[in-house]
Amino acid sequence: MDEVKIIEIKKSIFADNDEDAALLRKELKQKGVYLLNLMSSPGSGKTTTLTRVINLLKDRIRIAVMEADIDSDVDAVKILQETGIASIQLHTGGMCHLDAEMTRQGLMGLDLDGVDLVILENVGNLVCPAEFDTGAVSNMMILSVPEGHDKPLKYPLMFSVCDLVVINKIDVLPYFDFDMDQCREYVLMRNPKARVLPICAKTGEGVEALAEELLSRVKAWKEE
Amino acid sequence: MDEVKIIEIKKSIFADNDEDAALLRKELKQKGVYLLNLMSSPGSGKTTTLTRVINLLKDRIRIAVMEADIDSDVDAVKILQETGIASIQLHTGGMCHLDAEMTRQGLMGLDLDGVDLVILENVGNLVCPAEFDTGAVSNMMILSVPEGHDKPLKYPLMFSVCDLVVINKIDVLPYFDFDMDQCREYVLMRNPKARVLPICAKTGEGVEALAEELLSRVKAWKEE
Repeated sequence: MDEVKIIEIKKSIFADNDEDAALLRKELKQKGVYLLNLMSSPGSGKTTTLTRVINLLKDRIRIAVMEADIDSDVDAVKILQETGIASIQLHTGGMCHLDAEMTRQGLMGLDLDGVDLVILENVGNLVCPAEFDTGAVSNMMILSVPEGHDKPLKYPLMFSVCDLVVINKIDVLPYFDFDMDQCREYVLMRNPKARVLPICAKTGEGVEALAEELLSRVKAWKEE
Repeated sequence: MDEVKIIEIKKSIFADNDEDAALLRKELKQKGVYLLNLMSSPGSGKTTTLTRVINLLKDRIRIAVMEADIDSDVDAVKILQETGIASIQLHTGGMCHLDAEMTRQGLMGLDLDGVDLVILENVGNLVCPAEFDTGAVSNMMILSVPEGHDKPLKYPLMFSVCDLVVINKIDVLPYFDFDMDQCREYVLMRNPKARVLPICAKTGEGVEALAEELLSRVKAWKEE
């Protein structure tokens, strides 16, 4: 297994991130690489969910991972240990989000040859990452049960830009006042096209449906 | 009971936030107002903890609350309903943090006459709020058990700037792989002077110790 590669991300010099993101999306389309931007609060289970999904899909498509973190490499090490996939760790140097140019810096550190799906694990934050288009084909977010079902009310932009909302840690539903129907309603209020998938990354419950959803999205996009 | 007052916070025009924060701290010292800056991830239990603490202290000192939120007023409504304290809601218009000037805008909306303690509930975010001195006397943060004990490794600045770290949701410890001793060690690695207090805001366990800690800090500071 490879060592974890770490890239120090530099501040962007581009004035128009939307334009830059559209360009990156076009470049990736030509290469046949589907970029998924994964966002959530700290501790909602992004890395655990990723390891599960990767283990279900790694023999069917080629996956690469970029882990954005302020300055540790615990996530990249975990992904490597549990899936055998060499991910790269992007050090944001305290920055609270990634934009398209920073994402491009990360992609340049990956060998994209033959890769079908690149998953970008964004900084754990429900505010800033939602404001910057990374160039991804789609945005997925994870809301965990302990955070509460009211989060779509409090972080409107995040839920507006995501079309795949995973509700994680459903194994602890009995111990929290979390109303799944109400949550689904709030999510759809922010984005009527969002798909909501309840899972438990710890036990694996529901993760197969999530993996199938991602696989079908990648395939449909490649055939577009 | 008063209605919830909402203030739309404007972007700061001050170039040097540290200077501005020091000035605000001095002004508040002259008024005898202790400003506490409360930070955490989304859904870690800031508002529930606050209502518990306020109910324990409101007959002993005069408290005012400022709730920072992107655009809802659910927190201010909850504080009002459960404590009778009229808090004000600061709408940050998508901004991911508060700085000293924004805090000052909020304070101007409060009647500070006779107030001993102002609690600022910052935006739910472990990254950006840590970078801006609000003018508070001290920074407190809440880490909840479901988020995991590794958070001080991943959000170093947040844990460096807080000298009071509350570990919330200890009622669900049996259902999560959360190592309290390890967590305490990581917290102290970031800030050796930090006080770590485990609580359960839902049941009230440990909240009395937290209230006493805050009360003694306010009193000691007034006598300085």
